[in-house]
Amino acid sequence: ELDLKLEALEKGGYDHFMLKEIYEQPRSIRDCLRGRIYPQQGKVQLGGIKEYVEKLKNVDRIIIVACGTSWHAGLVGEYLIEEYARVPVEVEYASEFRYRNPIITEKDLVIAISQSGETADTMAAIELAKEKGATIFGICNVVGASIPRITHAGVYTHAGPEIGVASTKAFTAQVTVLTLIAFYIGQKRGAIKQSTLIEYLTQLDEIPTLVEQALKSNDRVKEIAEKFKNSNNCLFLGRGSSFPVALEGALKLKEISYIHAEGYPAAEMKHGPIALIDEDMPVIFIATKHSSYEKVISNIQEVKARGGQVAAIVTQGDTTVKDMADYIIEIPEVNEAFVPLVSTIPLQLLAYHIAVMRGCNVDQPRNLAKSVTVE
Amino acid sequence: ELDLKLEALEKGGYDHFMLKEIYEQPRSIRDCLRGRIYPQQGKVQLGGIKEYVEKLKNVDRIIIVACGTSWHAGLVGEYLIEEYARVPVEVEYASEFRYRNPIITEKDLVIAISQSGETADTMAAIELAKEKGATIFGICNVVGASIPRITHAGVYTHAGPEIGVASTKAFTAQVTVLTLIAFYIGQKRGAIKQSTLIEYLTQLDEIPTLVEQALKSNDRVKEIAEKFKNSNNCLFLGRGSSFPVALEGALKLKEISYIHAEGYPAAEMKHGPIALIDEDMPVIFIATKHSSYEKVISNIQEVKARGGQVAAIVTQGDTTVKDMADYIIEIPEVNEAFVPLVSTIPLQLLAYHIAVMRGCNVDQPRNLAKSVTVE
Repeated sequence: ELDLKLEALEKGGYDHFMLKEIYEQPRSIRDCLRGRIYPQQGKVQLGGIKEYVEKLKNVDRIIIVACGTSWHAGLVGEYLIEEYARVPVEVEYASEFRYRNPIITEKDLVIAISQSGETADTMAAIELAKEKGATIFGICNVVGASIPRITHAGVYTHAGPEIGVASTKAFTAQVTVLTLIAFYIGQKRGAIKQSTLIEYLTQLDEIPTLVEQALKSNDRVKEIAEKFKNSNNCLFLGRGSSFPVALEGALKLKEISYIHAEGYPAAEMKHGPIALIDEDMPVIFIATKHSSYEKVISNIQEVKARGGQVAAIVTQGDTTVKDMADYIIEIPEVNEAFVPLVSTIPLQLLAYHIAVMRGCNVDQPRNLAKSVTVE
Repeated sequence: ELDLKLEALEKGGYDHFMLKEIYEQPRSIRDCLRGRIYPQQGKVQLGGIKEYVEKLKNVDRIIIVACGTSWHAGLVGEYLIEEYARVPVEVEYASEFRYRNPIITEKDLVIAISQSGETADTMAAIELAKEKGATIFGICNVVGASIPRITHAGVYTHAGPEIGVASTKAFTAQVTVLTLIAFYIGQKRGAIKQSTLIEYLTQLDEIPTLVEQALKSNDRVKEIAEKFKNSNNCLFLGRGSSFPVALEGALKLKEISYIHAEGYPAAEMKHGPIALIDEDMPVIFIATKHSSYEKVISNIQEVKARGGQVAAIVTQGDTTVKDMADYIIEIPEVNEAFVPLVSTIPLQLLAYHIAVMRGCNVDQPRNLAKSVTVE
């Protein structure tokens, strides 16, 4: 009984750790940014990697290795680093990387991402890249874990302990760190103008507030969850950096509600998955007003024309998608660089509410462990 | 009536074009190899790209762009080119590549893959890479199509006309061409020893015969299709170059049977998808006796421990997996380099039989077009 009370206390009034952690994100992102950005000066400060400035200025290729949710964060990082630092990035499943005789040299920079800092496959990938002479950075949440100890340098996510097995605040903190790294490298290489950086950092500083606003979609998301809770399948579609967000939204739903959800780049739908579309296969779009907006709209029309049910995450005030989709969830307007940090929030809530409605054990889903320390 | 008779004639005695095309693969792969390999001399001859030998000797990075099934062939190509030519390869969805301000220079080689040679997103990706000065190779099936006309050089797959919307023989021909390109570059760069190449080419020459043997699994595959035909979901798992084969197996099932099938790298299962496993979610493993065999076996055990039904594609004579899996499909023993060409065959047959049993229109699945000429 004492244990139960203690757990209730630790949940801070929330029904589950996962929900608590979803709601902690304005704070965890703030903690992740603290002391690292100086918007007025247009400065990013990353103490953990500052000794590697010369390396970063000259790096030809970055390889990100990770598993699961961290791998999705890595895919977002690929978009950010290629766009803002103009360095080619390859994102690899740690488990595939380690077994495939990868082409790695001492010129390469490897970034390993792991919430726990103990993921077995990621550790093995690091050891392999180290043997080949690469420089290794870690992005971890648990201070003093194994990965931070075996990497050359790194940046902690400072998201605080994550108890729910399905990662939420660790993911947004990983994306935040990758955003900082992209800007940091971009600045050192002169790929990003100082005035642009000031603008970006000023908005990045606002992200915790925008995430708080995105959390206000909760009631709306709950209504949509009610509509979709009995589905056995679900597709999540996005383009650009919203593609990995779609993958992450699908993974959350898989993990805690046991619904077979799958993420896809929206344009690939026509190359196969569209055959699956019928009224029993809801499709969740990320359709914010950014570079591929028009293209995503035509994908929504294709799904509607085939009798699919559509829920879309849109930019506040959007009326075009509203007229087409069955359900919309508004998120605040945000620079394209930061969409993943904001659009992820309603997807986390959607998975959470559907899982609760289906009576699933949200914090400890079947078959899953919090950190995968076996191969 | 005349049209119907004509169609029956064109199907050459098979119930569907797709089945005819699956069975044509020994011949289409043979046609693809003809005049291109000289096993005894350890020589690969690719007339279409021979003017680019100097480029290939010095290339630092290859980017493969494609959509759908061709994208899966590209992923197999990544394994082959990295392993045998030791050049880093990045595989991109054409639709994502074209909209993301990709980092491309005149040093890069881009390989575009498209059966029809008319895929809109792939064409746009080529134009973008050309503007940036990259060298572009095409891998197409339809001679004289748009892509062969806008690329600098290329290699035709020579698989013959493919009528079934779900690609089968075009996929194995694409993989065959990528294998040839990997060996060709590997030889020019000295990454592969002459004696090893002779050995590989000797076996490659045998692949049409091994594919013919793999087709003999048809009755066995039909029995398994009977067991799985009522499933609404399915997972396909593999490691290494069997991961893209798993993706392709899942895509075939999606396209023609409308079952929600998903492919995953087997090791990623623990990072989420394993939560989905129950008796209603069959899992198809590619578990041939190659580098990750032991690891795949432990993944099979994990699925079995959670009540999942397992069908596995195994190397002829395997008894270990046989004792664990519910169903096995044997394929002939083959060098690791060529597994995708052989292990794909039973997956094509599985999708075909399940779709027929479900009464689906195999050759013209709902919502899909043979070549996607819109964006």
